[in-house]
Amino acid sequence: MKKNQPIGVFDSGLGGLTVLKALMELLPQENTVYFGDSGRAPYGSKSPETVVKYSLQNVRFLLEQHVKMIVIACNTASSRAYDAIRAMTGVPVVEVIGPGAAQAAAATRNGRIGVIGTRSTVESQVYPRTIREQADSVRICQQACPLFVSLAEEGWWDQPVTREIARIYLKPLLDSHIDTLVLGCTHYPLLSRDIISVTGPDVRLVHAGQAVASVVRQQLASLALLNDGSRDGEHQYFTSDSVDQFRTLGSAFLQQPIEQACRIDIEQY
Amino acid sequence: MKKNQPIGVFDSGLGGLTVLKALMELLPQENTVYFGDSGRAPYGSKSPETVVKYSLQNVRFLLEQHVKMIVIACNTASSRAYDAIRAMTGVPVVEVIGPGAAQAAAATRNGRIGVIGTRSTVESQVYPRTIREQADSVRICQQACPLFVSLAEEGWWDQPVTREIARIYLKPLLDSHIDTLVLGCTHYPLLSRDIISVTGPDVRLVHAGQAVASVVRQQLASLALLNDGSRDGEHQYFTSDSVDQFRTLGSAFLQQPIEQACRIDIEQY
Repeated sequence: MKKNQPIGVFDSGLGGLTVLKALMELLPQENTVYFGDSGRAPYGSKSPETVVKYSLQNVRFLLEQHVKMIVIACNTASSRAYDAIRAMTGVPVVEVIGPGAAQAAAATRNGRIGVIGTRSTVESQVYPRTIREQADSVRICQQACPLFVSLAEEGWWDQPVTREIARIYLKPLLDSHIDTLVLGCTHYPLLSRDIISVTGPDVRLVHAGQAVASVVRQQLASLALLNDGSRDGEHQYFTSDSVDQFRTLGSAFLQQPIEQACRIDIEQY
Repeated sequence: MKKNQPIGVFDSGLGGLTVLKALMELLPQENTVYFGDSGRAPYGSKSPETVVKYSLQNVRFLLEQHVKMIVIACNTASSRAYDAIRAMTGVPVVEVIGPGAAQAAAATRNGRIGVIGTRSTVESQVYPRTIREQADSVRICQQACPLFVSLAEEGWWDQPVTREIARIYLKPLLDSHIDTLVLGCTHYPLLSRDIISVTGPDVRLVHAGQAVASVVRQQLASLALLNDGSRDGEHQYFTSDSVDQFRTLGSAFLQQPIEQACRIDIEQY
């Protein structure tokens, strides 16, 4: 394995670009390969077996790009396919649940943590289990928010109706007096302001992106695989659906332009 | 071709069950095979090429079930893949756009028709083109409503927030004084009451299900393929995702219980 091999990142679509953004900020020299499975998105409403099958195909594609590490930048795939992916590949695998859970456990003052995510992530119970491994006496209140992904992709942030939907979804969590809220889906950071307008400033929002980037740095350092070159890394983008759509919408998620992307036939993997 | 062969119906997921329901009511003796591609749903946000590829796989599966006719119970697939499907198969193919367009053209009094659908269906311009073939002087106003599919699948009908979203989406159409509104997505009939509460009772809603069923009957009759047996037809259900999820949610769309369904690997087709 060489230091200048890229880090492979995948997500069901565009949400993982919020994780990639954090990676690029913390580790600007790293080369990256991103795959967004927009042709089969979203994963959150699909069954565990389907999510595992798709995730393994995505990883096989990334391995073909000679990546030195896999980052699962999707909560649903992290909750359902992490073990299957680790069993398949020899490269280190980083997922998004653990880092976010650790941050939440560290951040809470009153021991009451809220978790929001897709239906699949919530049903998997992976956040309560992982948070309790770090802080066993906390109370955790979960809520699936299926409409948030559509609202983010529709670009409806900072809108009254989005705040109204946030109010409906978050009410049971606020009634439980949470002081920390895990954004358990990589799409949700785009709705941060709407969510904060409902929770108020006293609830700490946990978005796993930065925590994931810091775990990636630690792991690469411990394996002597950090890219210490002096040049900025190169970034490649692949999608299983329209390249134009990926570039246009993706640039909003990444908060910088995506110049080029390639379409691939992921079903072949 | 024999009369007792089934009619094959497919959709990106569950919405097409609203069309199947209309078929079962009008033609109770017909046997049917339904395939819902929930493993890759929704189609409305995907590129035309991806929708064509998925649709052809779905049709290959249905043909293997020896269907005597294909019904494309999905507006996105009808708008993007109808020609490709007809080019591939020898059996008659019925789509959902034409029947709905004809009904709208016949229903309008003031010549102003609204069309709502997925982004893909709206961008394809298939409804304006098809409606104008029947009534060339009408004014047509379109609106993509991406959130409606999520709201229907979330079961959020008859809710204030759904009416609020409907108000946002429908405002430009009501400002254009439409008197007829085409529900150009098979999910939308589940939100009929929310939509009517915004449009008021003077706007006529067009839901293609019954119109499609009547076209199916005409075509089968003209080919001497109507099943004139005395017994009620048998109905088989297939999905590319979890069977439990398909049965639970699908029963709400079909408004009757789905006893059994089979999962298939659609990527093999």
